[in-house]
Amino acid sequence: MPITFHILPPCTELAEALQSKIDHKTKPLGALGQLEALALQIGLCQNTLSPQLSQPSIIIFAGDHGIVESGVSAYPQVVTAQMIGNFLAGGAAISVFAKQHGLNLWIVDAGVNADINPHEQLIAAKIAKGTQNFLSQPAMTMAQCLTAIQAGADIVLQRYNAGCHCIGFGEMGIGNTSSAALLMHCLTGIDLSQCVGRGAGLDDAQLQHKLTVLKHALAHHGTLTDPLTALSSFGGFEIAMLVGAYLKAAELNMLCLVDGFISTAALLVASKLYASVVDYCVFSHVSNEQGHQALLAYLNGKALLTLDLRLGEGSGIALAYPLVQSAVLFLNNMATFDEAQVANKNTDH
Amino acid sequence: MPITFHILPPCTELAEALQSKIDHKTKPLGALGQLEALALQIGLCQNTLSPQLSQPSIIIFAGDHGIVESGVSAYPQVVTAQMIGNFLAGGAAISVFAKQHGLNLWIVDAGVNADINPHEQLIAAKIAKGTQNFLSQPAMTMAQCLTAIQAGADIVLQRYNAGCHCIGFGEMGIGNTSSAALLMHCLTGIDLSQCVGRGAGLDDAQLQHKLTVLKHALAHHGTLTDPLTALSSFGGFEIAMLVGAYLKAAELNMLCLVDGFISTAALLVASKLYASVVDYCVFSHVSNEQGHQALLAYLNGKALLTLDLRLGEGSGIALAYPLVQSAVLFLNNMATFDEAQVANKNTDH
Repeated sequence: MPITFHILPPCTELAEALQSKIDHKTKPLGALGQLEALALQIGLCQNTLSPQLSQPSIIIFAGDHGIVESGVSAYPQVVTAQMIGNFLAGGAAISVFAKQHGLNLWIVDAGVNADINPHEQLIAAKIAKGTQNFLSQPAMTMAQCLTAIQAGADIVLQRYNAGCHCIGFGEMGIGNTSSAALLMHCLTGIDLSQCVGRGAGLDDAQLQHKLTVLKHALAHHGTLTDPLTALSSFGGFEIAMLVGAYLKAAELNMLCLVDGFISTAALLVASKLYASVVDYCVFSHVSNEQGHQALLAYLNGKALLTLDLRLGEGSGIALAYPLVQSAVLFLNNMATFDEAQVANKNTDH
Repeated sequence: MPITFHILPPCTELAEALQSKIDHKTKPLGALGQLEALALQIGLCQNTLSPQLSQPSIIIFAGDHGIVESGVSAYPQVVTAQMIGNFLAGGAAISVFAKQHGLNLWIVDAGVNADINPHEQLIAAKIAKGTQNFLSQPAMTMAQCLTAIQAGADIVLQRYNAGCHCIGFGEMGIGNTSSAALLMHCLTGIDLSQCVGRGAGLDDAQLQHKLTVLKHALAHHGTLTDPLTALSSFGGFEIAMLVGAYLKAAELNMLCLVDGFISTAALLVASKLYASVVDYCVFSHVSNEQGHQALLAYLNGKALLTLDLRLGEGSGIALAYPLVQSAVLFLNNMATFDEAQVANKNTDH
């Protein structure tokens, strides 16, 4: 790959000490279930017995998609730009949930088909005003794809340098479940019909039309198994930036929170470039979009939440964030049996 | 029943207006999944389009169990009292999670087999120093049972009068999964073997012993289908107080957050006295304790979290609370399509 990342699996030197710290807390062994595995993962990613979630942040990458002209979405393309206004004005779901949990929120114009007014939370990084329609041509050039990956990486580095060590990536882009479905099909081999879902709300006939369109696109390009070729052919600018963002975050040992179907499809692309990126990822939720469950299973990812969400925006990340925080807090702040003078099963029987 | 509660189903007058408010928010219809059903429920319980979670609180009822002398728990009885000390000192999981989310935390000595020192967060309501061993006699007298129910109700009324409208009930009591299993079996008819689990950590042989003990108890008392008789025969003081707490909270139209297996078994008893109590309940999580999933299905309850927790203490409530808060916040604070000038699917196609 023309852009190189240096991603190592998390150091496991502290694994035993972390598990012992977890096991000595005043609770039955394993009684905090998935939060215990999460605490261990976070400790390993940060290579410490006392992890911290400093400057937790969500970055939403937004872009438009040429394929929308082929009628694959229930909403018009203009909604991408309109929703950016809504994010910035504080009226969107992610605005409300990020504020609830004190998460820094940034919106990246990765390639929206409109001029977006400057705003202190907006990062202008437009590659082009939307991708090409991949029905008959690549969505973007390879040069655009690499530029987008680098831009995603640069944005994460900026956050890291500002003190952020826990980051989540959301997306906004009318039509982008189509990109995600094709990327999933190409890179996992799972049948296309299992990768295609209703997105923001297609009915049965519209879903069938979407599947037909995507089959035609596949017939034109072939089933592309090279991750960068698949990404440039079927991706969106926001998806390519997500790929770079995940890879840079993993390189920097940051904890990455993964949102829904599109965000996970971007992670799939990243994982085909550097498999260890997944070790730094926490899967916030399994969504109601068909394909997401199978995609998580493919990545061996176990989601924290199952709430039938299908919104994107990083909304699942914001909703799951308090659980990530709870994992860190119990690890750092719960008393041990000794400290609390509570009898342990192992010492009394 | 000698103690009367006045529990009405939530008023449904606002159902349509609430659903309309939810549907006009800037998101695809239904895209917030289970949070949308939760927002509707909370609005109905409070009979308002703009619900508030004022003074959210968790009350942990603690009690000891005579059956522990028959070897049904992995931990010694002294742990009940020791954990109260841990709750009050801030070292337990629930202490950490309640602090994380700004939840008021109260501990009730419902019947611990020890003298508990006064503390500003402790409510002294001891019925007796533990129940009798129900292997060969009722766990408590009917008079004790009714006193405990009334005490639970009184404690909730105090919180309500202090401004609390959202309350969750946890429990602590070495041995109390045995009580919960018998109550579940008697009041649902589900086979006892499906109601009995590992509690705080029994191995296979210990689990088999627990099942044998509980079968003997059932043989002695018979399968009691009257809720109060079952409660007084097999319950704990903390479970009886939970029953009164749920019923009073529902009478006061408070939102009730339900924790794990024992808390849900107490709700089962309450629901056999007043079925509408369940309408006011939010099921925070489905636990890893065998029986809980079947019990939730019996009560038509869908849990918010599935994290393989098995701790009690109200820990699942504290972990799920931010989701309850998110449901209220999106309902109150998200922009509508009109407010945000975002094109809606329905108006554009």
